[in-house]
Amino acid sequence: MMTEEIGHIRPRNLEAFIVKAFMHHGLSEDHANSVAHTMIVANLRGVDTHGVVRSGSYIERFKLNLVKPQPAFKVETRYGWAHAIDADNGMGPVVSDFAMKKVLDSAESHGIGGATVRQSNHFGAAQVFALQAAAQDCIGIVLSPASKSLAPFGSMEPLFGTNPIAVAAPAGRHAPWCLDMATSISARGHIRIAARRGEPIPEGWALDDQGRPTTDAEAALKGVMLPFAGPKGSALAMLVDMMGGALSGSGYAGTIRDMTRDFETPQDVGHFFMAFKIDAFMPVPEYTARMEHMIATLKALKPAAGFDEVMYPGEREARLAAKREAEGIPIPFETRKVLVQLSEETGIALPEGLN
Amino acid sequence: MMTEEIGHIRPRNLEAFIVKAFMHHGLSEDHANSVAHTMIVANLRGVDTHGVVRSGSYIERFKLNLVKPQPAFKVETRYGWAHAIDADNGMGPVVSDFAMKKVLDSAESHGIGGATVRQSNHFGAAQVFALQAAAQDCIGIVLSPASKSLAPFGSMEPLFGTNPIAVAAPAGRHAPWCLDMATSISARGHIRIAARRGEPIPEGWALDDQGRPTTDAEAALKGVMLPFAGPKGSALAMLVDMMGGALSGSGYAGTIRDMTRDFETPQDVGHFFMAFKIDAFMPVPEYTARMEHMIATLKALKPAAGFDEVMYPGEREARLAAKREAEGIPIPFETRKVLVQLSEETGIALPEGLN
Repeated sequence: MMTEEIGHIRPRNLEAFIVKAFMHHGLSEDHANSVAHTMIVANLRGVDTHGVVRSGSYIERFKLNLVKPQPAFKVETRYGWAHAIDADNGMGPVVSDFAMKKVLDSAESHGIGGATVRQSNHFGAAQVFALQAAAQDCIGIVLSPASKSLAPFGSMEPLFGTNPIAVAAPAGRHAPWCLDMATSISARGHIRIAARRGEPIPEGWALDDQGRPTTDAEAALKGVMLPFAGPKGSALAMLVDMMGGALSGSGYAGTIRDMTRDFETPQDVGHFFMAFKIDAFMPVPEYTARMEHMIATLKALKPAAGFDEVMYPGEREARLAAKREAEGIPIPFETRKVLVQLSEETGIALPEGLN
Repeated sequence: MMTEEIGHIRPRNLEAFIVKAFMHHGLSEDHANSVAHTMIVANLRGVDTHGVVRSGSYIERFKLNLVKPQPAFKVETRYGWAHAIDADNGMGPVVSDFAMKKVLDSAESHGIGGATVRQSNHFGAAQVFALQAAAQDCIGIVLSPASKSLAPFGSMEPLFGTNPIAVAAPAGRHAPWCLDMATSISARGHIRIAARRGEPIPEGWALDDQGRPTTDAEAALKGVMLPFAGPKGSALAMLVDMMGGALSGSGYAGTIRDMTRDFETPQDVGHFFMAFKIDAFMPVPEYTARMEHMIATLKALKPAAGFDEVMYPGEREARLAAKREAEGIPIPFETRKVLVQLSEETGIALPEGLN
């Protein structure tokens, strides 16, 4: 039975295992903590695609010398609050934690902080870093271009990636408001599943290899993914490529390497981080009262057909995180395989419940 | 013939007429210039719904004492770069020009400027203000919540407005990159047209009054509009309400009045403006070269079926603006009626070509 293959693992035990595994591969304890924490927060909030399952492919890239376990970051600071960071081809979560710390330190003294990062790698779930800003009475913005998979509006060839946008803001007694979205209409994985099942995909998801809209999943796999909402999602994808790529000095305009397909060249991913203090514009207690009123108003709306309640961005994820903190993180069979292999390679004991 | 009813008016003549008309209604020359310039730029770029046709309803609200022709703005500045502005119920374009000037002055010295505005009114086309930032080597962001018409994802009742998001960035020898989008999937006007013609509307545009998805335009008019891309557009609409409304101290969470339906209360619209210097992160020449390369790469992509070329955000509008600068702004019959009435009321001669 499938359920027998899923263990619920205590987050702290899972985190400790990941820390040790990455230290084994040459990371400092601090850096390994960044990697593990980023993954665990993603798992807690239900972004399992960016959780501990990634450790396999992250470590694969160490072995191929495509990512440096001990990078030397370089920082140029301008205007006191803006940091242009060279990640020296270190891990994405490590330099992102470093960058967000600099951004939030600047926000303490200047009311705002910003950072571009170049020569980085896949950083996990964007919301993890945006939430660090919300925890310090800031509104935080995180952008990161990805390898190309998405055709700009009007094109039949890909140029942009799924290019996530995350924004988080404090919400008083409620869990932080938190948006984290891809600018693609759907993940490629969903098309792959439809193709396997011989099912059609919804209109607007993809073009075939002749640049024509298609609902045929097989034809879509040979063609390109589309941004959400046509020109709107396309413009947002390009914005992420501009701010996280062009402006950072990193890969952009289609040059970022796909971590799951290119095993010869560093990814050259860039990121953009910004956070500003709420009190730059309004005293925090006033803002807090207004956010709580806003959420109460939204929650009191009548749900549409097929919905039990109206939720604000980040609410579902925070609820799931509380549940998983209490009950443990579910580890499906595929993820368990990755962790077992990691344990065998490193000699580090699997966390309780997985062994 | 319909074409006989459309005159092409020289932008400078049209602008001079609007300036005089608003001075007649009590605005200073400076403020009237802000209003006229905001409208003309919208017309030049093809955003005709936010062009000179609005002068009728703007002035209607002066007559009802719902907008102050001579507001006294109050500004509180924090951290040197962040301005919380009270618009004193003045016109939207006037306080937005004022706010954007403060933002760009701050960007000159601090590398960044930001402003929230409260107690304002409809400000026209958001892109007009974002473009001011791009003209000064900044990336500019403009957000403004609107009166409620949009159901948040999962709700059958409206809470947010069409809530525009505009971002502009310099693009070297090309016209500025410029995104200006509503967070609704479609304008209500399109549904009204479909209803009049007895035609269906596309799936996903609206819910009926029972909260069920509908393609019946009549049923949609009795129901609510939907955000684009489901939870994504909904989250962006809420973000605009948070940053332009909750954080500004202005109307939010459904309290902003509709300028075309409520003639008893000031609108209480809020805005959010931000601009940061490119050189906070990268020398301008390097950024410029990279943007030009990005645009060249995009333009070289093979167009999809039904497209002649791939365009970047703002390209179409800039092309149209150049054409209209040369050939004049087309004034359809309905707009002409508004301008003729304005001329009759104020005694100001119509611009050449309209008289």
